[in-house]
Amino acid sequence: MASASKTLASCIFCKIVKGEIPSFKLVETETAYSFLDINPLSKGHSLVIPKYHTEKMHELPDEELADILRVAKQIAIATGAENYNILQNNGRIAHQEVDHVHFHVIPKPSATDAEGLVIGWPQQKVGMDALAKLHEEIKGKL
Amino acid sequence: MASASKTLASCIFCKIVKGEIPSFKLVETETAYSFLDINPLSKGHSLVIPKYHTEKMHELPDEELADILRVAKQIAIATGAENYNILQNNGRIAHQEVDHVHFHVIPKPSATDAEGLVIGWPQQKVGMDALAKLHEEIKGKL
Repeated sequence: MASASKTLASCIFCKIVKGEIPSFKLVETETAYSFLDINPLSKGHSLVIPKYHTEKMHELPDEELADILRVAKQIAIATGAENYNILQNNGRIAHQEVDHVHFHVIPKPSATDAEGLVIGWPQQKVGMDALAKLHEEIKGKL
Repeated sequence: MASASKTLASCIFCKIVKGEIPSFKLVETETAYSFLDINPLSKGHSLVIPKYHTEKMHELPDEELADILRVAKQIAIATGAENYNILQNNGRIAHQEVDHVHFHVIPKPSATDAEGLVIGWPQQKVGMDALAKLHEEIKGKL
């Protein structure tokens, strides 16, 4: 396992993993670390991160992703949230604010836009023919 | 492995996995299935689902979660998206519309709200003392 073998000295999340910056730590595994978000959208909002530093999810080796969702699951259960979102943002225009992969676990205590994740859903009009063409394109790159 | 041993006859995503409803299938593994979202928010918007039927993520056995993110990663790479969101919603008020766990891979081609996931971020004001107390509460349930 190459876990935690790649860190970035200037990265705030790498510093948290190494204990150089304090955090409200929750679950830690060989490859993952989790802690309360100190700027939460709702009570229990937490982050699960790989110890291995990359900016975006698709840059991570597969084995560094293995623990993420089971840790997120543990935290979701511990918060007692009935409704919640799992969110991971890649790139500034996709709302990523810290350039180290992180998964949000965000309880949604009520239907209001005042707490928890607020989601907008600009559904596109796409015909079946266009989808079939795109399907072939993407399959060709898998 | 108990994969796909739990399906729900009336579930549209279980029907897709079983081939009873057609889909624009992408990657399939022993425990995961993925396909183009036919009501996309952006070009390449895809879904990755566990074959095992549960409504919410925290109800899934750990082993049924194991393939999800590496499949999402494969798809993110194949779409060529530089910016994208991974999103999984639990509960109607958290924007879940099909009651079978599903992870969205949503390319964000531009900063506009006209395509891709739109995110609102109602940050709460919470003091460090309240966070420390919450930390103890959640740790006690882990």
